[in-house]
Amino acid sequence: MVKPNLQVALDNNTLESALSDVVAVGNIVDIVEAGTILILQEGKKAVSSLRALYPHKLIIADTKCADAGGTVAKNMADAGANWMTCICSATIPTMKSANQKIDQIQVELYGDWTRENAQAWLDAGIKQVIYHQSRDALLSGVSWGDKDLNKVKMLVDMGFKVSVTGGLSVDKLALFQGVNVYTFIAGRAITQADDPAKAAQAFQDELTRLWP
Amino acid sequence: MVKPNLQVALDNNTLESALSDVVAVGNIVDIVEAGTILILQEGKKAVSSLRALYPHKLIIADTKCADAGGTVAKNMADAGANWMTCICSATIPTMKSANQKIDQIQVELYGDWTRENAQAWLDAGIKQVIYHQSRDALLSGVSWGDKDLNKVKMLVDMGFKVSVTGGLSVDKLALFQGVNVYTFIAGRAITQADDPAKAAQAFQDELTRLWP
Repeated sequence: MVKPNLQVALDNNTLESALSDVVAVGNIVDIVEAGTILILQEGKKAVSSLRALYPHKLIIADTKCADAGGTVAKNMADAGANWMTCICSATIPTMKSANQKIDQIQVELYGDWTRENAQAWLDAGIKQVIYHQSRDALLSGVSWGDKDLNKVKMLVDMGFKVSVTGGLSVDKLALFQGVNVYTFIAGRAITQADDPAKAAQAFQDELTRLWP
Repeated sequence: MVKPNLQVALDNNTLESALSDVVAVGNIVDIVEAGTILILQEGKKAVSSLRALYPHKLIIADTKCADAGGTVAKNMADAGANWMTCICSATIPTMKSANQKIDQIQVELYGDWTRENAQAWLDAGIKQVIYHQSRDALLSGVSWGDKDLNKVKMLVDMGFKVSVTGGLSVDKLALFQGVNVYTFIAGRAITQADDPAKAAQAFQDELTRLWP
């Protein structure tokens, strides 16, 4: 199995705070994400500033695009993003038009979606999905379980590159051992750690151990 | 019946272009919307600039929030928005936490949703929904029909304040006569008209005629 990527999500309220967080870990993680909160606060500058800092790294714009896919994708690609997220309730035309204007889009799974929906995304040429525990659901006490793991496995088996996110800590990674997860996304587990670089490296070490 | 509101959606790629569009019609419309495209490009400045121009007008941040509802709502309220949109696939905890940090949230209806979902939003204290024809669906040839009208009526009957949007022109308003629509949202039908002020006034005149 291939070692999954490690992605840091920057969900800061200001660009300055995001820059401060990312310089500590940007060279340790594989992918840098301009989070939704950050983009809604700072706009495309959130993406273009990360691109300026990391000319050769994979950068994701977590726009959770629901409409006007072509326009948003062109704007994010222009700002320097490699990939961009679309919300799962976006229509297929929205996803297709986004997919034409940026290298790849990733479908973010929130709320109700079905295997039929997922097949329709595959048929539309979409290669990536993000399996999500909602931050607000986590705050209200929901956690990772077999139900999640079975859905992740189903998506991997269907042929998607699957990113996994939501309240992940190093000790939770072992839950996914044996599954071809493409990327694990961590936010505050890295950026709010006492030593963020050490925390990011601990994620990487555990990924190497579990996916040798 | 009460005359529906007229809302102008600013889906510009730059703040300057949005400002240029809004000054022509801001005093004619009832509600000004910072569109998703604009917020993703310019961040909270999109909202705070509109608030600076129109201290007493209803301003909506079309964030299509899918997660971290409390944070996004607080940020948008701080920037000067009265109301904010959440995507229908957001979880109930996300919608509830958003609803606590801003005056009202509006649920944007994209993709599949059910009457049971809508009842759960009502039960969570949400008063507004936005019935949407996706821009990309419209581009691919879909238009307004009885199916839409029946869903709008159902939502009104359930007790929601219902906004309606997506490819609306003045001549389409008559389709909704007799229905208690709360707000009609128009974007380019106003801002891209030869005479935007005249176009906005034509919408208002037709609303007055149809909902006397």
